[in-house]
Amino acid sequence: MIGVAVIGYGYWGPNLARCFAETDDCRLVAIADSSPAGLARAGKRYPHARLLADWREALADPEIDAIAIATPVRTHYEIARAALQAGRHVLVEKPMTENSDQARQLIEMAEQRGLTLLVDHTFVYSSAVQKMKELIAADDLGQIYYYDSTRINLGLFQRDVNVIWDLAVHDLAILQHVLDSPPTAISANGISHVRGAPENMAQITLYLESGAVAHLNVNWLAPVKVRRVLVAGTRKMIVWDDLEPSEKIKVYDRGVSLTADPEEIYQMLVSYRIGDMWAPRLSTAEPVLTETTHFIACIKDGLTPITDGRLGLQVVEMLEAATRSMSMRGHPVELNPQRRAS
Amino acid sequence: MIGVAVIGYGYWGPNLARCFAETDDCRLVAIADSSPAGLARAGKRYPHARLLADWREALADPEIDAIAIATPVRTHYEIARAALQAGRHVLVEKPMTENSDQARQLIEMAEQRGLTLLVDHTFVYSSAVQKMKELIAADDLGQIYYYDSTRINLGLFQRDVNVIWDLAVHDLAILQHVLDSPPTAISANGISHVRGAPENMAQITLYLESGAVAHLNVNWLAPVKVRRVLVAGTRKMIVWDDLEPSEKIKVYDRGVSLTADPEEIYQMLVSYRIGDMWAPRLSTAEPVLTETTHFIACIKDGLTPITDGRLGLQVVEMLEAATRSMSMRGHPVELNPQRRAS
Amino acid sequence: MIGVAVIGYGYWGPNLARCFAETDDCRLVAIADSSPAGLARAGKRYPHARLLADWREALADPEIDAIAIATPVRTHYEIARAALQAGRHVLVEKPMTENSDQARQLIEMAEQRGLTLLVDHTFVYSSAVQKMKELIAADDLGQIYYYDSTRINLGLFQRDVNVIWDLAVHDLAILQHVLDSPPTAISANGISHVRGAPENMAQITLYLESGAVAHLNVNWLAPVKVRRVLVAGTRKMIVWDDLEPSEKIKVYDRGVSLTADPEEIYQMLVSYRIGDMWAPRLSTAEPVLTETTHFIACIKDGLTPITDGRLGLQVVEMLEAATRSMSMRGHPVELNPQRRAS
Amino acid sequence: MIGVAVIGYGYWGPNLARCFAETDDCRLVAIADSSPAGLARAGKRYPHARLLADWREALADPEIDAIAIATPVRTHYEIARAALQAGRHVLVEKPMTENSDQARQLIEMAEQRGLTLLVDHTFVYSSAVQKMKELIAADDLGQIYYYDSTRINLGLFQRDVNVIWDLAVHDLAILQHVLDSPPTAISANGISHVRGAPENMAQITLYLESGAVAHLNVNWLAPVKVRRVLVAGTRKMIVWDDLEPSEKIKVYDRGVSLTADPEEIYQMLVSYRIGDMWAPRLSTAEPVLTETTHFIACIKDGLTPITDGRLGLQVVEMLEAATRSMSMRGHPVELNPQRRAS
Repeated sequence: MIGVAVIGYGYWGPNLARCFAETDDCRLVAIADSSPAGLARAGKRYPHARLLADWREALADPEIDAIAIATPVRTHYEIARAALQAGRHVLVEKPMTENSDQARQLIEMAEQRGLTLLVDHTFVYSSAVQKMKELIAADDLGQIYYYDSTRINLGLFQRDVNVIWDLAVHDLAILQHVLDSPPTAISANGISHVRGAPENMAQITLYLESGAVAHLNVNWLAPVKVRRVLVAGTRKMIVWDDLEPSEKIKVYDRGVSLTADPEEIYQMLVSYRIGDMWAPRLSTAEPVLTETTHFIACIKDGLTPITDGRLGLQVVEMLEAATRSMSMRGHPVELNPQRRAS
Repeated sequence: MIGVAVIGYGYWGPNLARCFAETDDCRLVAIADSSPAGLARAGKRYPHARLLADWREALADPEIDAIAIATPVRTHYEIARAALQAGRHVLVEKPMTENSDQARQLIEMAEQRGLTLLVDHTFVYSSAVQKMKELIAADDLGQIYYYDSTRINLGLFQRDVNVIWDLAVHDLAILQHVLDSPPTAISANGISHVRGAPENMAQITLYLESGAVAHLNVNWLAPVKVRRVLVAGTRKMIVWDDLEPSEKIKVYDRGVSLTADPEEIYQMLVSYRIGDMWAPRLSTAEPVLTETTHFIACIKDGLTPITDGRLGLQVVEMLEAATRSMSMRGHPVELNPQRRAS
Repeated sequence: MIGVAVIGYGYWGPNLARCFAETDDCRLVAIADSSPAGLARAGKRYPHARLLADWREALADPEIDAIAIATPVRTHYEIARAALQAGRHVLVEKPMTENSDQARQLIEMAEQRGLTLLVDHTFVYSSAVQKMKELIAADDLGQIYYYDSTRINLGLFQRDVNVIWDLAVHDLAILQHVLDSPPTAISANGISHVRGAPENMAQITLYLESGAVAHLNVNWLAPVKVRRVLVAGTRKMIVWDDLEPSEKIKVYDRGVSLTADPEEIYQMLVSYRIGDMWAPRLSTAEPVLTETTHFIACIKDGLTPITDGRLGLQVVEMLEAATRSMSMRGHPVELNPQRRAS
Repeated sequence: MIGVAVIGYGYWGPNLARCFAETDDCRLVAIADSSPAGLARAGKRYPHARLLADWREALADPEIDAIAIATPVRTHYEIARAALQAGRHVLVEKPMTENSDQARQLIEMAEQRGLTLLVDHTFVYSSAVQKMKELIAADDLGQIYYYDSTRINLGLFQRDVNVIWDLAVHDLAILQHVLDSPPTAISANGISHVRGAPENMAQITLYLESGAVAHLNVNWLAPVKVRRVLVAGTRKMIVWDDLEPSEKIKVYDRGVSLTADPEEIYQMLVSYRIGDMWAPRLSTAEPVLTETTHFIACIKDGLTPITDGRLGLQVVEMLEAATRSMSMRGHPVELNPQRRAS
């Protein structure tokens, strides 16, 4: 039985608490929040959990084996470092840290101590992303051409992070998970419509090692909500519409076949293929519960999490590069795969 | 009665021929096409039109006052120049020319001779774009934040132009028409999935003089067709879905109000507004017919066309800049408003 | 402070309990359920509520002023009668009773004792239905032509009631509320696809006193979920799509104008009107909470509930007539407005 | 080479003329129309066709082997009879005749003379209906539960026929073609919203010999256009949305399995199955061209048309029964399969 403390009971913490409470081989021992109101809500819902006004108390509690961090990004590093130093396994909300140096330190600390470090990129645990990963791994799509995401809505304007750190972060984790091909360069453009505030809309292009590209369109100031990802390969193409109630993933047997005409050097022959469409049934398992269950299994069996510190670091590096490129109006920022891999 | 010759009877020429045949004060005198098969089709449809294997014959015909050019882009300049030299009014398919120097020459020739020069940016004459222009001109949207377009499908791979020249060209004309604010810089990213072929997918950001941005996403290799444009302002936001059968334009009374909290300097207060949605009735007039009617009126009354050579040139300049930026993986290309205006 | 007991903690009871717990001037005193498991769940969620294995205990409790009944339909009458006899106000799940005689008795008992009797036709309290009522009351739609509802999905097969009592019951309450015109005849057709089980799909036509008709299509065995109602009038037409996330109500300025040609007696001139569409903003208030709040207000101020016993009785009478007609394969069943009004 | 004359060049005649002109082994010899304007339009489009002001002239022309009738319903019988008497093959627009007696006479005449008689139920030749027929014939759907159609829009009010004869006629032909199970009874309800005019909205239930039912909802006075048919079987369910641009047919692996619990006689166990969805690629062949090609093949090879006179008669019998039931507000009308089969 793994004892867990949830740190932060604001927007996301309640989901983690609920799922840890339902996860097998796991006990929700404590909840920490600096706000008395948050703590009161937690107590009403979990009468048996210890309520901590200061997260540091959790680290002294011998019944607590693991810490789940759902606090603002700027506090992730401090709390995660203290937890690892205290010998606790850590689940940390995405993005992992404010910068990549912090992420590298946390990875090293966890490795040296043999502790589990999982970054909460929840979408990776959704049945839609799992199905995409499965189809791509089975080579059903063929060689991947691109990943193209539109993630827009009238959303909460964040004060401390821009829209890339808030929305594109999802796609960056998903595309590393499903395509497993790091970017060699990133170009991003964006704008803030409020003087002095972080950018609220952006377009990002990632050039991947495999030759594929990823296009991301994120926006907090759109009149309609769109959550749509296209993944196209030589054989098949996927449309993932996360707002569809039942058929979130559609697989299209469509594409082009390109052949050079041997007779005519300048002539390119393109033939189009339009076949069936297929929407596989998706599991209705809740992603957060899948994730907390995976976290506990990793702790017990010493497994590496699917969304481990390395994935978390990769995402932070891409966020840094995209933000840097955005400040130069699209000037591409090269990423060094060597350094990342070390 | 204005006599018109249509040059090129391939994909687009038949639409122009049909609309000129239906336009008042206008007579379809001749159709030229280098292919005997194209000419035969034209003759079957228009038994009274002269059929010309060589477009040059049209310039010697005293009954022909105007030339409509629907040939490949690389031939636009030569034909338009010859027509203007021969004192004929010109309607030329978009994009106007292969490069901006050619466009400038044509503008100058038309001005010196007092001839009408209209670039066939058909979308500008659609009832959806006219309604957007009308709403923006009446300040219903307030100050414009952005223009964001997705224009993707499984489309014909062009051999001589990339996807920007083929698809983004529409948005560039539309946004200049409705926003009337030239870009100061353009960043574009794109890729070709066929070695040696032009780019088939691209993302473009335009930084406009007004402070607004435009984001364009164009793609010939998408499993689904999307034609969706968002235009957001301080007061209202528009979604234009051109594939909707009846409600193409939806106006949302949505947005955010941002105010700095006087007490707390770092605190930004955002309030969200979610009001009614409204879909104005659109005229069912056919855009091409609206355009040919406008062309004849401009000739008769000496008016400047809505899509005149200057708009055509602006679009070509933006296409050049976007293509240049794309070859540098998003490195921004500055545009000099001075030079453009000269 | 009105003390409330919720009887039945299965599918719907938890919603009522939650809303009564959040309603002002009201206290959730007790929850009764015959199943120990249901009672345990209730206790976990509401540690301060009394847990009753037998609902009769609630009637002896002086702190309980009102009873909310969320048990199977066949038990409604017995529990409601006992509650009214014990001087308690009653909120009863829809349909009100198994037959109209029982409904008439409950109405009479409540009236004699001056007690509030509300039938839980929740949809009537939704912002979509309230908006429709408001538009129709303001004569925005003109004279009503028809109400046409499609309410289908792959649904829970009920054992004790047919699909009309389960799904059409919603439309019957809504249309009486918004159109306020009782039917003079009902014709219904339906079928059971399981030998011996109640009908799982049906089509119902109601001929209303006003001259309008209502068409209802209900089905438990459909591959897709549809919740769509059309209400058409001489001036405007409404489409209510309850599955739309944001624009549930759309008002179309569409219709026909019909005039007899004075010259030609057999000639009917029809002109079509296609104008704007408008989607009014809807309140996001939760219907059940609106209803529980209304129930408490009715008790305190002696008001007649919007969904009172008379509406509940009307609905049961229509359900009876529809079921009778269905057993005769559409043979129309006349309803006597006189008797209903008595 | 079969010579064809098209009689009637109003709304539908031009489609038939165009398709006969494109059909192999067939020549469009003549077009007849009583209106000079219609004839002039025909002549402009088909300069080589003979233009006849009186359709009777076509019957004397030895180059004309077949007559295609696209005139108002009330004239179908007279023209078809004269054509068959003159030894001509006949294609007649749907509905076949004004009443079933006329239809029986035409069938008999064609049989006695060995002439081809095809009723133009175009939808039967569409790739969507062909795919449904194919899936059902292959027993992919299992035993059929029902056919449920919604066919509504703001449509042309007809003066001589009601909405059943105009819109439900499509479904009646389709369902006989794909289910091949005649109705034993029909119940219909409908209303006219214009005094003295034919009914403009109706709901029809057909009880089929196989035990399945068909529900049809037709309406000329709806604010939105819907063309959606559900066909559900024990194994799979189809949704056919004819307004979808690309995936018109969707096959859902969904349903219920019903088993009686042996222990508990009153207990019905229902298990739900939710599997994949699949949208087969459909041919883009034009239905009318498929039909005219089939008509010519039937003439040349002596085959029985898919939509022969018997199908046309069945549809007229169902239209008569539905109209009769509608006049009795849903009172079911029995159909005698014996008589129909004789």
